[in-house]
Amino acid sequence: MQKFNSSKHPHRRYNPLLDEWVLVSPQRTKRPWQGQEEEQNIAQCPEYDKDCYLCPGNTRSNGNKNPDYEACYVFENDFPSLLKEELEVTADTTSNLMQSKPERGINKVVCFSPKHNLTIPEMELSEIEAIVKTWKQQYLELGAYEFINYVQIFENKGAVMGCSNPHPHGQIWSQSSIPSKAEKTQDNLNAYYQKTGKSLLEVYLDEELLHQERIIAENEHFVALVPFWAIWPYETMLISKRHFASLADLQPKEEKAFAHMLKVITVKYDNLFKTSFPYSSGIHQAPTDGLPHPEWHFHMHFYPPLLRSATVKKFMVGYEMLGEAQRDISAEQAAKILRELPTTHYKSSN
Amino acid sequence: MQKFNSSKHPHRRYNPLLDEWVLVSPQRTKRPWQGQEEEQNIAQCPEYDKDCYLCPGNTRSNGNKNPDYEACYVFENDFPSLLKEELEVTADTTSNLMQSKPERGINKVVCFSPKHNLTIPEMELSEIEAIVKTWKQQYLELGAYEFINYVQIFENKGAVMGCSNPHPHGQIWSQSSIPSKAEKTQDNLNAYYQKTGKSLLEVYLDEELLHQERIIAENEHFVALVPFWAIWPYETMLISKRHFASLADLQPKEEKAFAHMLKVITVKYDNLFKTSFPYSSGIHQAPTDGLPHPEWHFHMHFYPPLLRSATVKKFMVGYEMLGEAQRDISAEQAAKILRELPTTHYKSSN
Ligand SMILES: O=P(O)(O)O[C@H]1O[C@H](CO)[C@@H](O)[C@H](O)[C@H]1O
Ligand SMILES: O=P(O)(O)O[C@H]1O[C@H](CO)[C@@H](O)[C@H](O)[C@H]1O
Repeated sequence: MQKFNSSKHPHRRYNPLLDEWVLVSPQRTKRPWQGQEEEQNIAQCPEYDKDCYLCPGNTRSNGNKNPDYEACYVFENDFPSLLKEELEVTADTTSNLMQSKPERGINKVVCFSPKHNLTIPEMELSEIEAIVKTWKQQYLELGAYEFINYVQIFENKGAVMGCSNPHPHGQIWSQSSIPSKAEKTQDNLNAYYQKTGKSLLEVYLDEELLHQERIIAENEHFVALVPFWAIWPYETMLISKRHFASLADLQPKEEKAFAHMLKVITVKYDNLFKTSFPYSSGIHQAPTDGLPHPEWHFHMHFYPPLLRSATVKKFMVGYEMLGEAQRDISAEQAAKILRELPTTHYKSSN
Repeated sequence: MQKFNSSKHPHRRYNPLLDEWVLVSPQRTKRPWQGQEEEQNIAQCPEYDKDCYLCPGNTRSNGNKNPDYEACYVFENDFPSLLKEELEVTADTTSNLMQSKPERGINKVVCFSPKHNLTIPEMELSEIEAIVKTWKQQYLELGAYEFINYVQIFENKGAVMGCSNPHPHGQIWSQSSIPSKAEKTQDNLNAYYQKTGKSLLEVYLDEELLHQERIIAENEHFVALVPFWAIWPYETMLISKRHFASLADLQPKEEKAFAHMLKVITVKYDNLFKTSFPYSSGIHQAPTDGLPHPEWHFHMHFYPPLLRSATVKKFMVGYEMLGEAQRDISAEQAAKILRELPTTHYKSSN
């Protein structure tokens, strides 16, 4: 009988954060691709676009005018998925199997830079630090509302990720409930913490640092790695070395180190296929529900769709929607490729 | 205080099959769209394409030649995600937080028709019935293998769903483990069955038939509806009226009725945006692990990506990947639109 080899044979891996499995098929990378390809946006954007509703000084669709902002600019989303108003709920007639409840919240847009064409990987460290500080401030400000119990900070980058405007920006959806995936993460972090008195991600990070094979980059306070259970081809996680729960606990040195790691990972991403690399990213951290959360360990996920090139993505479809996530290239292969890429942006002259 | 109205105000709904919530923002449909649009394939395909590796008589990339098949044709996937071989696993050195295990399985491709350009909505009822019979036979055949405990039957339709060949076909991934989503469904069906002695989906279907507002179509043995907790804009479910566990239990009358319902739903889908409507669909049913599964209730999911038109899809990205699924148009609005569409295909002359 042939010996099982995880870099050659199909297997499943367990995600302890979500209590889910992923199917890994490393032998499947040879599959030819004749399907849909993404358009590549090679058109250079100007630094200012008079038709962009995020550029400084421009007027948005609701008539509001953006100030002439110079660093980050935050405003409430003009088409929010959540509303602030408290509503009167009359007798719940829905059944056990048809449960619904109103949800309150505040949606914000965070412009990362006044420059229409400047994405994170091409920013100065100080500019990225300003984004980190803005996120922290927003987490504190939104979390202070009595009715806001969770603050989801995220970025959709690139048209393929549903982003409708190339102007560098992210979003914040803050709300009364803890959304399903954050709650599941919390449940699993908490179960581990109750059992061992330790942070699951601290223990995990120690093991990863020992192995090194999935580590991409490391500085004094943060590590970038491809998680053992990654589902997207080049999925990564930024994990803080120190065990703390949220942006509120981030110390000035850690802000700098976090900004640095954001730069490193996004530069490597752009260098991978020599393109402005699309992804959805977001921070998972403690809720703002006023309860103690020693189980939470601050981290950030990057979910990029590209698989083979700047135009061929991984489709999470049929089997993935009905069965479970499936990947071809293994986490270790992906980590090796990302680790070996330069930390200088391919477009920069240095 | 304003009264809460689920067709106007943001709320969350509970999915009892997956024990997850979905965020519904019915007020958000007015949002303008300036983002990525899908290409529409209006080019007419020929009935036979000499370059298609699924057409009868053609040679596939591994040198195998397809027979001159006349109805359905099933073969083993040339680029399988799973392998049949049993492998020797030596001492598991992985930690608690890095669990993996080999996974065995068989992947098959099911050509629905010899005609390169004939999708399900344009087939005769008898041709769709042949697909249903093929699925049933495959479920029985694959399930009979000692090492196959679960059989996932699915279809990816359309380039936007990662389908690389327009020739009408689906896939079957059968394997040793029950994949995460099917297992979660089973756990929830089982918990309900243990508590009440009833099928969750039977009780749910009764409630839906009483309300009627999410019902799209009904025949003697099957119902098509937009589930209360749907996440995709035009997501639907086909549920059998009778409580049975799998295709193995499907009676001849039910095969016909199931084929009829497949035709009805896919015709309505094509009629919605007058396009060959993309989706991923798949059957959820009892595992083939030899255990009794009275909790299982046969059903089929349709997950279509389109939102506003033949070219604008819903992006499940940032918030959805990190928080939870989010939808704009409500399940009731979607059901009304689908219900009112004709059951005659827009391209047919009748
Ligand atoms: O097997 P195919 O059709 O080449 O591939 C398609 O379906 C598979 C199963 O849902 C996915 O894993 C692939 O990402 C998708 O492109
Ligand atoms: O708010 P935007 O950028 O218009 O919209 C984008 O991000 C949202 C949050 O992830 C998604 O719900 C939308 O489907 C996507 O198009």
